[in-house]
Amino acid sequence: MTKLRMGMVGGGPGAFIGPVHRIAAELDGEIALAAGAFSSNAARSRDAGERYRIDPARAYADLDAMLAAEAARDDGIAFLSIVTPNHLHLPAAKAALAAGLPVMSDKPATATLDEALELRRLVRASGQPYALTYTYSGYPLVREARARIAAGALGKIRKVVVEYPQGWLAGEASGKQAEWRVDPARSGLGGCIGDIGVHAFHLAEFVTGLSVTELFADLAAVVPGRALDDDCTVLLRFDNGARGVLMASQIAVGERNGLHIRVYGENGGLDWRQETPNALTLHHSDGRTEIIQAGDAALGPDARAATRTPGGHPEGYLEAFANLYTDFARLLRGEPAPLLPGIDEGVRSMAFIATAVEASARQAGWVPLLIPGE
Amino acid sequence: MTKLRMGMVGGGPGAFIGPVHRIAAELDGEIALAAGAFSSNAARSRDAGERYRIDPARAYADLDAMLAAEAARDDGIAFLSIVTPNHLHLPAAKAALAAGLPVMSDKPATATLDEALELRRLVRASGQPYALTYTYSGYPLVREARARIAAGALGKIRKVVVEYPQGWLAGEASGKQAEWRVDPARSGLGGCIGDIGVHAFHLAEFVTGLSVTELFADLAAVVPGRALDDDCTVLLRFDNGARGVLMASQIAVGERNGLHIRVYGENGGLDWRQETPNALTLHHSDGRTEIIQAGDAALGPDARAATRTPGGHPEGYLEAFANLYTDFARLLRGEPAPLLPGIDEGVRSMAFIATAVEASARQAGWVPLLIPGE
Amino acid sequence: MTKLRMGMVGGGPGAFIGPVHRIAAELDGEIALAAGAFSSNAARSRDAGERYRIDPARAYADLDAMLAAEAARDDGIAFLSIVTPNHLHLPAAKAALAAGLPVMSDKPATATLDEALELRRLVRASGQPYALTYTYSGYPLVREARARIAAGALGKIRKVVVEYPQGWLAGEASGKQAEWRVDPARSGLGGCIGDIGVHAFHLAEFVTGLSVTELFADLAAVVPGRALDDDCTVLLRFDNGARGVLMASQIAVGERNGLHIRVYGENGGLDWRQETPNALTLHHSDGRTEIIQAGDAALGPDARAATRTPGGHPEGYLEAFANLYTDFARLLRGEPAPLLPGIDEGVRSMAFIATAVEASARQAGWVPLLIPGE
Amino acid sequence: MTKLRMGMVGGGPGAFIGPVHRIAAELDGEIALAAGAFSSNAARSRDAGERYRIDPARAYADLDAMLAAEAARDDGIAFLSIVTPNHLHLPAAKAALAAGLPVMSDKPATATLDEALELRRLVRASGQPYALTYTYSGYPLVREARARIAAGALGKIRKVVVEYPQGWLAGEASGKQAEWRVDPARSGLGGCIGDIGVHAFHLAEFVTGLSVTELFADLAAVVPGRALDDDCTVLLRFDNGARGVLMASQIAVGERNGLHIRVYGENGGLDWRQETPNALTLHHSDGRTEIIQAGDAALGPDARAATRTPGGHPEGYLEAFANLYTDFARLLRGEPAPLLPGIDEGVRSMAFIATAVEASARQAGWVPLLIPGE
Repeated sequence: MTKLRMGMVGGGPGAFIGPVHRIAAELDGEIALAAGAFSSNAARSRDAGERYRIDPARAYADLDAMLAAEAARDDGIAFLSIVTPNHLHLPAAKAALAAGLPVMSDKPATATLDEALELRRLVRASGQPYALTYTYSGYPLVREARARIAAGALGKIRKVVVEYPQGWLAGEASGKQAEWRVDPARSGLGGCIGDIGVHAFHLAEFVTGLSVTELFADLAAVVPGRALDDDCTVLLRFDNGARGVLMASQIAVGERNGLHIRVYGENGGLDWRQETPNALTLHHSDGRTEIIQAGDAALGPDARAATRTPGGHPEGYLEAFANLYTDFARLLRGEPAPLLPGIDEGVRSMAFIATAVEASARQAGWVPLLIPGE
Repeated sequence: MTKLRMGMVGGGPGAFIGPVHRIAAELDGEIALAAGAFSSNAARSRDAGERYRIDPARAYADLDAMLAAEAARDDGIAFLSIVTPNHLHLPAAKAALAAGLPVMSDKPATATLDEALELRRLVRASGQPYALTYTYSGYPLVREARARIAAGALGKIRKVVVEYPQGWLAGEASGKQAEWRVDPARSGLGGCIGDIGVHAFHLAEFVTGLSVTELFADLAAVVPGRALDDDCTVLLRFDNGARGVLMASQIAVGERNGLHIRVYGENGGLDWRQETPNALTLHHSDGRTEIIQAGDAALGPDARAATRTPGGHPEGYLEAFANLYTDFARLLRGEPAPLLPGIDEGVRSMAFIATAVEASARQAGWVPLLIPGE
Repeated sequence: MTKLRMGMVGGGPGAFIGPVHRIAAELDGEIALAAGAFSSNAARSRDAGERYRIDPARAYADLDAMLAAEAARDDGIAFLSIVTPNHLHLPAAKAALAAGLPVMSDKPATATLDEALELRRLVRASGQPYALTYTYSGYPLVREARARIAAGALGKIRKVVVEYPQGWLAGEASGKQAEWRVDPARSGLGGCIGDIGVHAFHLAEFVTGLSVTELFADLAAVVPGRALDDDCTVLLRFDNGARGVLMASQIAVGERNGLHIRVYGENGGLDWRQETPNALTLHHSDGRTEIIQAGDAALGPDARAATRTPGGHPEGYLEAFANLYTDFARLLRGEPAPLLPGIDEGVRSMAFIATAVEASARQAGWVPLLIPGE
Repeated sequence: MTKLRMGMVGGGPGAFIGPVHRIAAELDGEIALAAGAFSSNAARSRDAGERYRIDPARAYADLDAMLAAEAARDDGIAFLSIVTPNHLHLPAAKAALAAGLPVMSDKPATATLDEALELRRLVRASGQPYALTYTYSGYPLVREARARIAAGALGKIRKVVVEYPQGWLAGEASGKQAEWRVDPARSGLGGCIGDIGVHAFHLAEFVTGLSVTELFADLAAVVPGRALDDDCTVLLRFDNGARGVLMASQIAVGERNGLHIRVYGENGGLDWRQETPNALTLHHSDGRTEIIQAGDAALGPDARAATRTPGGHPEGYLEAFANLYTDFARLLRGEPAPLLPGIDEGVRSMAFIATAVEASARQAGWVPLLIPGE
C-alpha cells in the first residue's frame, strides 16, 4: 500500500502552519507531501519545496498550474491541503474541488459566512471529501470527554465554560504571524473571535454534542489603533437550554495558548486544558474527582485510537493535528471518520463569527445563531 | 494589655460561620469572645455558650438583652460580631450602633440595597467603626496582588476575569447551610449572586483598585423549582475602561470553592486561586512567569503583615479571616486599616447584587451600576 | 466548661514556634495560654507575656518559679507546653512531670537518645500524659492516608518515598532560627536529620503503620564550615520487608517546606504534599487516579474530625498543629487520642537520628534501628 | 536535497518502539524509512513493511540480507536504526558498521558492559557515526536546563535528585513489552535499572555536565518470582563532590512515566518533569521562582532549535525523540551534534548498570564507577 500524496497551497517561507500540516499529515505514515504551490513567488515556492525535500519539479508558483500538472501525472496528488491566509481558502478549495480533489483546509473554512455558504454548495455538489483542521478536537482526551458526555456520564448538560486566552498580541502586532491576523483584508471579519474564539466555539459544540442557538457578544479592540477585536466574551445558549460562557483574548499577557473547557451536567463535571492535554479531570456527583490520563485502561476507543504512545509519554499539538489527517486518510479510503470536522462545522463556525461580530456591533442583546439554509 | 472582648449575634448550633468568626477573631490573640446571643432559643444559646466555653451568664437569648447586660458590666463587650442570616444583619447592626458598639458583620451588609443605604446613614451618624468580612481580601497574596497593581506592575488594567464556581447546590438543597441560601425570605434578592458572586465582585474591585461602572447580567435558576439564581455570569466595565467577566455558580458539580481571579494589564498579568492561596502567578511583559509564594522575601508589607508562618507552611481560609479581625482590632485601637472593607464596600456590593438581579430580569442590555447618594 | 490553662516554657521574643503553639493550642477554643517562662531574661519574658496578653504576674523568668507559683494558684496551669531549643526539652519536661503536670513538647523529644530514654522512664513513672508535636501527622489528609492504608486500600506496602527539601540554609546561617539549628550544642547530634529528617521519619511510620528496622544513611554537611549535616539521604527497611527512601535537605535552593510522601503497595499508591495539604492523590490498581480533598464526603472519621471548614476552604499548618493540641486536650479529659505522638514515638525518633548519624559516620552499610529497652 | 534513507532492524508487529523510531526519524522531514529487517519471520517482516508503507521488496527477514541487498542499490539505505531487544543490539550494530553504515541505536547500547566495550572498539575503528536514543535528552527544556547549568545559573552543583517511577510491572508481567523486560536472557543484567534507571542516570549526567564517580546501590526484585530488579535506589557521588539520589521503580502503582530531575547548586535550583515537559522551574538564590516554558523568549539556542511550535502548543515524547534523529541527520551531513549521546555515553551507561547490579548484590557499600579503558 503506498502513501496518499498530498499537495499543499500556502506554507511558504515564514509560515508557521505549513510545516505543522506537513508534520501532521505525515506523522502516521499514511500520507506524503508530494507537491506544493507554497508561494506565488516562484523562487520562494522553490525554496520551500527544497526545505520540504520534495521533487523540485513539483514546487509550483501557482495553484492552477499545480492542479493541472499534477492531474497529468500518474503519481499526481490525491488531495489538496490549504494553509493560506483565510481570504484565500475559498478560491483554493474551489479550484481543488473543480479538479476533482478532496480538500483538507486549515480553519476557518473561509473569510466570510457568504463564502462558507458558497463553499458548502460546492462541496455538496462535488461529492468530494472536505475537512477542516479544528485541531483541538484531535486530542485524545477531548475525544474521551465527548464520548463520556455522549454516554451520559454527566447527565443533562447545564453549563459550559470555554476560554482561550493568549497574550501575544497584547502589544504591537509584529511579525508575519501577527500582521495578517490584525488586518481585516486578510483575516476576514473577526480578529480574535475568528482566529481563536472559533476554536473555542467548535470545541464546546464538539465536546458537548450540543448546538449553540443564541448568543450575546462583547467584542473589543483593546490595543489602541487595532481594527479587529482582540478580546471577546460571548454568552451562549445551547439547544438543550444549557448556558455557556466563551472567552477568547489575545491581550491576556502571559497566557500562551490557554484553551480550556469545563462542562457541568446534572451528575458530573469535567475539565480539560490544552496546555496539559494528556489529563482530563472528571467530577462525579458523589464527590469523587478522577484524573484520567492518556494511556489509561479506562479510555474509550476514540481516545485509544488517537494515541500512539503508552501512558506518561506525552503527546501534544502535532499528534492532535495528525489525528485529523489520519481521520482524513480514513475518509479517502472510504471509511467513516465521524469526529472529523467538515463543511457543516465550517459553516456553523463562520455563522458564529458573523453573528458575534454583528451582535457585538449592534449591542442588541441576545441574538439567534442562525445557519442559513438549515 | 488585655484582649478586646467580642459579643456575637448568631452562630448557634448548626451554624458554620459562627465558629469560624470565633476562631478568626481569637487567632492572633488580640480578641476574645466574651458574650453571645447565639440563638433566640434560650436553651440553644446556652448550649452554644458552653461549646464556646464562655461564662454561662453571658449566653443570651436576645440581642437587646445582651447589649443591655453587657453595657452594665465593667468588662462588657467592646464590639458586636454579626453572623446571623442576611435578613437580620441590619437590625443587629442598628441595635449595636445604637448601643455605641462598633460592628464587625458577616457579608453581605444587609438583605437589600435599601437596607444598606439605611445602614450607611446609621454608621456615618454613629461614628463607630463598621467592617464587613469579605474574607478573601484577607489572604496575603490577594493583598500582594493589590499592592503590585497599585504600584503599576501590570500597567493600565485591561481585563479582569473573576470566577467563583461551587457545586454543592447542584442537587436538592438540604441541610441548614443550603436551605436558607435558596430561600428569598432569608437570603435577600440574590441567590448565588448574593452568596458568592458578591465575593467575586468585591475581590475584583479590591485587587484592581478599579470600580465597576456598568454591567450586563445573566442570572439563572438552573435547578428546577429553585426560586433564586444558582448560576450567574456578569460582564463588567470598570471606570478606567477595562472589561471584566464575573462568573459564579453553585451548580458546577465537583467545584468546591473555586474563587479565582486573573487580571491583565498593558504590561503584565496575574493569577490567584483561593484553593491554593499561598501562590500568586505573575506574568511579566518580557515573557517571564514568576511564582510568588507566601513567605517570599519579595513580598510587600501588606502581605508580610498578613502572614504568620515561614514560606511553605500553608496558611488558609481561617488565617485570611483572622487578618480581617486583626485589621478590625487595629481600627478599635484608633489605627488605620485601609484594606478592611467597610460600609461603602457594603453598599457597593448590595448595589451590585440589586443591579445584577434587575438587569438580568429585564434583559435590557448593559446597565449602569449606580451607587445612590454618591 | 472552662478552658484548659496552658503554661509555656520558651517562645520569647524572636521565636517562631512559640506563637505557633499559642495559636494552635487556642484555635479550637479548648485551651488558653495562661502563664509562661518565655525567656530566662526577666524583661524579655515580661515583654513576651504582654504580647501574648496574659496576666503580667504570670510571665516568669524561670520555669521552676513558674511551676511553684502556678501550683499555688486555684487557676494554675493544667499542663506545660515546651517550645525551647532541643537541649532544654529534657530538663523542662522533667520539671513539669515532677510538678505533676502533663507535657506537650515540641519535637524532637530531647537532644540525644540517652535523654529520650531517661524521659521515657520519667514519663512512664509519672503516669502523666506526654505528647510531641509531630505537626504533620495532624493534617486531615495525612490521617486519611493512614486510615486508608490501615484499611488495606493499597494492599501490602512495598515502597515508601518520603522527602523533606528546604533551601533556607543553603547559604550562611543567619538569624535566630538558623543559628541554633547549625549549632551542635543547642541542636543535638543531628542537623538536618534532627530538624526535619525526623519529621519525615515519623510521617513514614505514621502513615504506613510500619516500623523501620534497618537503615543506610548518607548525611553530609554541604555548606563549607558547617558542623552538622544539612543534607541527608537514608534508605529504609520496614518490618514487613518494604523498602523506603528518606531524603531531607536544607540546601535545596528554592524549596520552602516540601515535605512529601508517596506510598506504593501491591494494589495502589498514594501521594501527599505538605504545601498543598488539602488534597491526597490515590492510585488504584485498575489504573484509576483519584484526588481526595478535605471536606469530601468520602473521608473517614479521622480526617473529618480534623477539619473545621467545608471543602475548598483551605486549612493549613496552624490547623494541623491545632489538631494535635485538640487531641492532647482529649487526653487530658481522659479520652483516647490514638493518633497523637507520645514518648514512644519520641524515643523511636531519637533512635533514628542517633542511628543515622552514627551509620553515616561509620559508613558501615546497613545497620539495624534498635530501640533500647524494647 | 533528498531525504536520508533509513533501514530498521526490529520493530515488527507488536513492537512499541519501532513505530516510535519511524515517526521520530521522519518527523522533521529529513529522513525516510526505506527498508527494514523487521522480524526474522519473513511473513511478519513483510506485514510490518506493508504497515510502514515501504516498498515490499525492501522488507527483509534477515539483517545480513538487507545490508547486502541495500548496498547493491543506488538508493540503498544510508544508516541503520536498531530497535531490537537489547541482546541483539551488538550483533546488529556490528553488522551495520561492517557494512560501512552509521548506526542509530535504541538504548541501552548493548546487553552487557563487555559488549559495550567491544562496540566502542568497533565504532572507533569504523569511523562511522553512532548514536543512542536517550530520548529524554531530546526535550527542549532538558537542553535548556543543561545550558543554564553550563552557564553557571545554579553555581556549583551540590545535589541531584533524579527519579523514574513507573507502575506497569507492579503485577504479573504480561504482554510483549513486559515479558522481555523481566527476562534476563533478553534484557541483560539489569531489569528496572537497565530499562529506566539508565535513562535517569544519563539525564543526570547530561543536565549537570558532571560525571558519576561512585555509587551505592540497592536493587530489589519486589514482585515475587521476578528474576530481575524492579525497584532501585542508587546513591551517587559526582566528580565535583556533589551528591545524588537516583530512584527508579516499575512497581510504583499509578505512576506512568514519572521521570523527574531536580538539581540544586550554590545559587539556585531547577526542576523538570517528563510528564509536563514544556515547563522548567527555576529557583533563584534571591528567592524568586520562575517558570520557563517552551517557546519563551528567554530560551537559549539549544532549546529553541529543539522546538517546532509556538509557546503553549505542547510538544511531547515523539518530538523529543525526533530531536535526536534530527541531530543524527546533522552528524550524517558532517555537522556537529554535541548534545547527541554516542558510544561513550553508551559505555558509561552500561558500566553504571553493571556496577549498580554488582554493588547491590555484594552489599559492599560505596563502589567506584569505573569506565574500562579510560
